[in-house]
Amino acid sequence: MPVEEVTMGTEFLKIKEVGEAKKIIKDLFNEYSPEQEKINIENSYGRVISEDIMSSIDLPLFDRSLMDGFAVKAKDTFGASDESPKKLKCIDSIEAGSYSAKTIEDGECIEISTGAPLPKGSNAIAMIEFSERQGDDVYILKSVAPNQDLALKGSDINKNKLLLEKNTFLSPDKIGVLAAQGIKELNVFKKPKIAVISTGNELVREDEELDYGKIYDTNTHSIRNATIACGADAIAKGIVKDNYLELKLRIEESLKDSDILICSGGTSAGVGDILRHVMDEMGEVIIHGVSVKPGKPTIVGLIDEKIIIGLPGNPVSALIIFYVFIAPNIRKLSGLKEVETSKIVKAKISKRIHSPKGRMEYALVQIKDDLAIPILKDSGAIASLAHADGYVKIPKTTELLDEGEEVKVALFR
Amino acid sequence: MPVEEVTMGTEFLKIKEVGEAKKIIKDLFNEYSPEQEKINIENSYGRVISEDIMSSIDLPLFDRSLMDGFAVKAKDTFGASDESPKKLKCIDSIEAGSYSAKTIEDGECIEISTGAPLPKGSNAIAMIEFSERQGDDVYILKSVAPNQDLALKGSDINKNKLLLEKNTFLSPDKIGVLAAQGIKELNVFKKPKIAVISTGNELVREDEELDYGKIYDTNTHSIRNATIACGADAIAKGIVKDNYLELKLRIEESLKDSDILICSGGTSAGVGDILRHVMDEMGEVIIHGVSVKPGKPTIVGLIDEKIIIGLPGNPVSALIIFYVFIAPNIRKLSGLKEVETSKIVKAKISKRIHSPKGRMEYALVQIKDDLAIPILKDSGAIASLAHADGYVKIPKTTELLDEGEEVKVALFR
Repeated sequence: MPVEEVTMGTEFLKIKEVGEAKKIIKDLFNEYSPEQEKINIENSYGRVISEDIMSSIDLPLFDRSLMDGFAVKAKDTFGASDESPKKLKCIDSIEAGSYSAKTIEDGECIEISTGAPLPKGSNAIAMIEFSERQGDDVYILKSVAPNQDLALKGSDINKNKLLLEKNTFLSPDKIGVLAAQGIKELNVFKKPKIAVISTGNELVREDEELDYGKIYDTNTHSIRNATIACGADAIAKGIVKDNYLELKLRIEESLKDSDILICSGGTSAGVGDILRHVMDEMGEVIIHGVSVKPGKPTIVGLIDEKIIIGLPGNPVSALIIFYVFIAPNIRKLSGLKEVETSKIVKAKISKRIHSPKGRMEYALVQIKDDLAIPILKDSGAIASLAHADGYVKIPKTTELLDEGEEVKVALFR
Repeated sequence: MPVEEVTMGTEFLKIKEVGEAKKIIKDLFNEYSPEQEKINIENSYGRVISEDIMSSIDLPLFDRSLMDGFAVKAKDTFGASDESPKKLKCIDSIEAGSYSAKTIEDGECIEISTGAPLPKGSNAIAMIEFSERQGDDVYILKSVAPNQDLALKGSDINKNKLLLEKNTFLSPDKIGVLAAQGIKELNVFKKPKIAVISTGNELVREDEELDYGKIYDTNTHSIRNATIACGADAIAKGIVKDNYLELKLRIEESLKDSDILICSGGTSAGVGDILRHVMDEMGEVIIHGVSVKPGKPTIVGLIDEKIIIGLPGNPVSALIIFYVFIAPNIRKLSGLKEVETSKIVKAKISKRIHSPKGRMEYALVQIKDDLAIPILKDSGAIASLAHADGYVKIPKTTELLDEGEEVKVALFR
C-alpha cells in the first residue's frame, strides 16, 4: 500500500490533510507584515493601495453645469412653454474651464457650457434645446426647477471622506478616481520578493544540450510567472542539481534578496529528499507530504523566519499545488483582498471523472461554453496544459464526478 | 426635445444606433493587420502568440518512469503477491537525469527513480511500495501489467504536432508548455501603439494649480490604463486646450508614433466641436453621435488611415464608451481571441433601475455577493467609480430593470 507517512527526513512528519496544510501555510504567511512604498500615479496600474485614501477636495469643487444652456434663476422660468416663452437677458457666457464674475439679477441669464461653474445669482440650468436666442434675448421654452441639471459642490464626494479603501486593486477606473482628486503620489504595498529554484539532475535550460534522460526545466518559467501573476516580484535562481551542498548554497544566496523561496523537485524519496535534508539543517520543516493528488510530496518550512516552499518536480503538479496552496497567500501578501484571490467559473462536467478515495484530487479541465471537459492524462503530461483552462477540486470522499454535475473551475489566468 | 442629429460639423451625420456604431468600429479595426515581433520566453508573460507553435520534440522524449521502483519485465512479476513474492536480481540503478546502458534479461530488474528513462529490456515499473530489497535481491509483491506506471515516448505530445494555437494568451501554464519543449524565442503580436489625448480648457495636470472652474485631468490616467489593460502600448500625449490649431498640431505629432489615437473631450457642441472640425479637415468623420447613455457625443473617424476615437470628456462616460465600443477591438488587435475579450459575471439587480426609452443605457453597478447594486449618481460623478465594479447594459426598449432581475455585469478589471 502507498506510504502515508514520510520518514526519510530526520524528523517524523505525518501526511497532512488539505485543509490542515492550507491553514498551516496561511498562518505562516500571516507572520509577514507587507511593506509599503510610495509610487507615482503614472505607475500605479495593477498595484494595491496600502492605506485608506481620503478625498482631498470636494467633487465637484463648484456647482457645475451638467448641460449646455443658460444659467438662470429657476423662478424666472416658471410657467414657460413653447406657447408662452419667458424672455431673459443674456449678460455673459461661460465655457468650461472659465467663470463669470457677474451676478445674475432677476430677468437675466448667462450662457453656460457643460462643466462650467454656475454663476452667482443663478440656481438652475435651462437646456439649450429648450431655449431660443435672438441677440442678447433668450426665450426659455420650458420651466426648470431649482438645482436642475446641476451637480452641486461636493455632491459626488466631499473633502476628507474615504475615497478608496486600503487593499484596493488599482484598475483603470480606480486610478481615474485618484486622478480626479489630483493625487500625484500614493502608498502601495511593496511587491513581495520571491525566489524560484528548480532542482533535479534531469533538468537543463532551454539553451543547453538535451542529453538522453534529460528534460527541459519548465518550472522556472511556469512558477516564476504564476508568482508574478499573484503580484509578486519573482526572481529566477536557476537550476540546482540534486546535490545537498549545491542546494544549500543556492538557498543561502537566494534568501539574501528574497522574502520567500519556492523550490520545485528534490522533494520525493527517489531523489534522496535533498530539499528536506537541507531544510532540516538550515531551519525547520513544518509540512512534508499532503494528502492530495497530484502533489503529495509537497514541503513547507522556515529558514531564518522566511517561508520555504518545496513543490513537486512534475510541472503540472507543481503548478496545481502552487495555485491551490500558495497563490492565495502571495496575493494576500501583495495586498489583494481575499475575495479577489480566485477566478472561479461554474461549468458542467462533460464526462464522468473517477477519483481516488481518501485523497483530495485536483483535475485539469478545459472550458468550452459552459462545459468543463476533463483532461484525462497522467499528471506528468505537460502538454496537457496547452488545453487546460483550470482545474476542479474533487473532495476526498468523492469517488466520481458524474456527467452534467456542476463544478467550480479555478482558472489558471 | 433633445437633438438627434449633430449638425455642428461640416457634414451632416445621423446619430448611430449602438449596434450600427459597434459594427462600423469593428470594421475599421479589421483594416489593421497586427504586426508581430520575436521575443524571449522570459518576457512572454501576458503576450499573445502570433502564429501556431508546433512541438519540436516528443514529450516525453523517452519512455519515462512515473514512479520510484524497479524497471522490470512485466511477465516476470505475474502472479506476485505478499504471500508469494517474485525474486528478481537488481543489476543497476537509474536516477532521474541519468540512464543505464544495461539491458534487463529475464529475472533481472533495475532500480529506477521517477522521471528516469526506462532501461532496455524492461516494459513496466514495479512500485517501491510493493517490493522489498535485500542486497541485490528484489522481491516483487504485486503483479504489474506491461506499460504500468510508464509515460511512453510521445504519449504527452508527438513532435511536429500543434502545441499552441495562434492567438493563445501566454499565461504561466502556457509558458510552461513552451518551456517543456525548450523553446527559447517565439513570435507574438506587437502591442498596438495608442496615443491618448485629453482636451478641454478646464483640465489641469495633477501638478498644476487648480484655479476656479478647473478640474484635474482624469482621462489621461483612466483611459491610458484601460488601453494598457487591453494589451496595448499606451502613450499619454497630455492635455490640449479647446483650440483648433493646438489640437491639430498635437494630433499630427501623436500620429507619428501611434497606430490609433484616443481623444476625450472636445466632442460636444458646447465646446465648439473642436475635434470634429480638426477631423473633418485632416481626415474623415465616420460616426458623430451614438444613441447611448452616457456617451452620446462619441466621434469615430480616420486620419491617414489611422483610427481616431473621440470619447466624451466626462470620465465616467469616457470609460464606459471605451469599454463598450473600443476595448474589444483593441484586445483583438493585441491578438486576443474574441471569446476572451469580456469579463462578465451574472448577478441580480438589488433594486429597480429606471432607464430612458429610446437610448441604450449603461449603468454602473457594484457587485456584492451575487447582487448588482446600482450606483445612482449622475454620469459626471467620478467618485462613484470608487464603488463601481462594472456596468450593466439596459436595452433601449427597456424602461426599467426590476429588483431581482438577473443581469450580466461587464467588469472593469
